[in-house]
Amino acid sequence: MHDRLIQLNAEYAASIDDDRLEDWPGFFTENCLYRVTTRDNYRRGMPAGLIYADTRDMLADRVLSLRKANVYETQSYRHVIGMPRILPAPSDRGPKVATSFVVMRINRQGHTDIFASGEYLDIIETHGDAMLLRERDVVCDSSRIDTLLALPL
Amino acid sequence: MHDRLIQLNAEYAASIDDDRLEDWPGFFTENCLYRVTTRDNYRRGMPAGLIYADTRDMLADRVLSLRKANVYETQSYRHVIGMPRILPAPSDRGPKVATSFVVMRINRQGHTDIFASGEYLDIIETHGDAMLLRERDVVCDSSRIDTLLALPL
Amino acid sequence: MHDRLIQLNAEYAASIDDDRLEDWPGFFTENCLYRVTTRDNYRRGMPAGLIYADTRDMLADRVLSLRKANVYETQSYRHVIGMPRILPAPSDRGPKVATSFVVMRINRQGHTDIFASGEYLDIIETHGDAMLLRERDVVCDSSRIDTLLALPL
Repeated sequence: MHDRLIQLNAEYAASIDDDRLEDWPGFFTENCLYRVTTRDNYRRGMPAGLIYADTRDMLADRVLSLRKANVYETQSYRHVIGMPRILPAPSDRGPKVATSFVVMRINRQGHTDIFASGEYLDIIETHGDAMLLRERDVVCDSSRIDTLLALPL
Repeated sequence: MHDRLIQLNAEYAASIDDDRLEDWPGFFTENCLYRVTTRDNYRRGMPAGLIYADTRDMLADRVLSLRKANVYETQSYRHVIGMPRILPAPSDRGPKVATSFVVMRINRQGHTDIFASGEYLDIIETHGDAMLLRERDVVCDSSRIDTLLALPL
Repeated sequence: MHDRLIQLNAEYAASIDDDRLEDWPGFFTENCLYRVTTRDNYRRGMPAGLIYADTRDMLADRVLSLRKANVYETQSYRHVIGMPRILPAPSDRGPKVATSFVVMRINRQGHTDIFASGEYLDIIETHGDAMLLRERDVVCDSSRIDTLLALPL
């Protein structure tokens, strides 16, 4: 279980960092929940502060928009993902998992900065051999979120 | 063994990053050694250059002081912890383990910088099902240490 | 297999970060391939853009040069290495593996910045109990590469 979660996150990150965004929705279940918010908003009960999608199709639409905007032409990303912690109380659907992440951004001039850090709060579903994200709440540490945040985290 | 060390570090980091500092002393044995120093000092044989505590109670006192000072109101932290390396020569008490870490700091304005990096040098004790830190030397790469370093690393 | 790859990368990183550079060539096979390039060059089919070595002896020579130049007197490094992804198509020699990395640099004044990030693209050979790097392509995200890049990554 633990090893497969680690693998899931490594593949998830590589799809973004290698600019294979079209693969990214495939890590989610058909009906899913992908939300991005800040830590402050999350604690105030606003988990969908910045981005909200509840089907895999919505995620695919998001990728299409990004391709049109050519965001990936001008910069690239590098994820560092920590070890998953399986939380004591599972959901109806499957285990709840919390995982730290940090994302670096490398701009066209070659400068690297820390783009975002925070925690993934996931609900995991197992479909045969595959593990999929039923829910991924991306809770960002920083309250100052870049306007480019339409990018997958 | 290896998996449990990874889990220990993930839980340890989460207690700090989630601002559950009161849980932090619980990762150590009753009589323990928690020391923070710089790499330069460590090589000169000064492992207790900056912070020294040798009981779990001292660690709890440290947390109380931090709460009074409200340090966590103004910033947050994000650990990235590498894979533990079990060193060839164990101690009398249990295995010696070395593990890289990097800690990001996110300030109230939302700016993120690298707060500290370095290596944990641990002696691990196993108590029934639990793994505890008998010793944790936090050896920081940088010689310039922030005055806020009373914070757990 | 997966656990041993993780261990290999942890030991590899520690040899550099602990300034035990003389141990570094020992992670490669006698005849090997160590190349450093940028992501842009790699995509253009130029995997040897910056550094090229094809024997363990060449790597040892590189370390000797670094010692003469005293580069490690003035700064230190800290690797953060992600989880290895075993790629679907193996090579003749052994499995192909892709692994994210980020390297921090700490200068003498104690300032830390992100020195490099990118991906290791490896071919792994197993010799008895040991796993060795038959090939390691270091593909850096940034096109702006520091002139000190003779340093192992």
